[in-house]
Amino acid sequence: MNTAERRQNLREALVAAAGRAIEARGLAGLKARDLAAEAGCAVGAIYNVAADLDDLILAVNERTLAALGAALAEAGSGAGGAPADAESATAQLVRLAHAYLHFAAAQKRRWRAVFDHHLPEGKAVPETYHDRQRQLFAFIEQPLAVLRPDLAPDALAPLARSLFSAVHGIVALGLEEKLGAVSLSDLEEQTSAILTALGRGLTARGLE
Amino acid sequence: MNTAERRQNLREALVAAAGRAIEARGLAGLKARDLAAEAGCAVGAIYNVAADLDDLILAVNERTLAALGAALAEAGSGAGGAPADAESATAQLVRLAHAYLHFAAAQKRRWRAVFDHHLPEGKAVPETYHDRQRQLFAFIEQPLAVLRPDLAPDALAPLARSLFSAVHGIVALGLEEKLGAVSLSDLEEQTSAILTALGRGLTARGLE
Repeated sequence: MNTAERRQNLREALVAAAGRAIEARGLAGLKARDLAAEAGCAVGAIYNVAADLDDLILAVNERTLAALGAALAEAGSGAGGAPADAESATAQLVRLAHAYLHFAAAQKRRWRAVFDHHLPEGKAVPETYHDRQRQLFAFIEQPLAVLRPDLAPDALAPLARSLFSAVHGIVALGLEEKLGAVSLSDLEEQTSAILTALGRGLTARGLE
Repeated sequence: MNTAERRQNLREALVAAAGRAIEARGLAGLKARDLAAEAGCAVGAIYNVAADLDDLILAVNERTLAALGAALAEAGSGAGGAPADAESATAQLVRLAHAYLHFAAAQKRRWRAVFDHHLPEGKAVPETYHDRQRQLFAFIEQPLAVLRPDLAPDALAPLARSLFSAVHGIVALGLEEKLGAVSLSDLEEQTSAILTALGRGLTARGLE
């Protein structure tokens, strides 16, 4: 094993340890000392393979986004390929929202870390991270393009982002029980109701 | 000034100091020592008039919710009273969403504190706090009742909560620029697009 491979292995061990620590105790409980102990290295050695703890957290969050992408891909392709009509496009949006809800509920702390982590002022998120986000929005753009065939891709993108954010809001406030207790099946019903109305409203624009 | 008045005044000074500290540095920067210094009391004296720091934070958050309620009341009654038809009900939902967006943008840290503050396990939020939240949802229920006259109040409540959460998601992810930079006017457009489609979709249910 050469030096490059050893560095690669150590970085991998640290990212995996950071992932487990976030899953167990959340972002606030993350300590360099614990990660070094788990990866079997000195605390200082972390900084040979990572710029700082934020670098490791971003690597964990990128993997969380990749896992979320896989979950959405499965839900999105449930009917096999692009939806044929407005009704199946709306059904696809509902499936995507439910997949998001279940992903978040199953790994609450890892999912929260994606949204709770903030880089210090002046530091930018790497481009690969934004690419991952764009891949998520692409799953939403596919059914949206069926509901709104009149919209150009650059108009679909902000709409997909809004839809994602809206579902995120329902899931986040719901899972944190910020507005009182809500069950997972209540949240399924609520996202269904909102997305069914949205799907209908987006296609019904011609009725004005 | 008797003892009860003195206690009341000290509590008021501490809540006001906590509000200013949250506005300046956010929830994470809140320290009992700083609050005591600003209110001109010993650190220990805080615990004569408040159960703990959470108690003071909840008092600040309740005031933030009251101020938000006043902003929504103004936006909601823009057209004077209950909306007459589906179109004006949808316009009212858009106005409420914009009022929420501008409220959050204008006092970002106080607004974030309402959602970021978590009581330790086993401690419950006081009932007055839930009352404040319910008052906010009532502003949304009024136009929703016009869009869905078929729904009973106990079906309107979860729908209002979902709508609030959806708008909250768009505003929260947008203001934090979690999904890339978005301007305030972009966010206005996005909330308008989503709520207009929702309003249309909620009334169009009879078209199925």
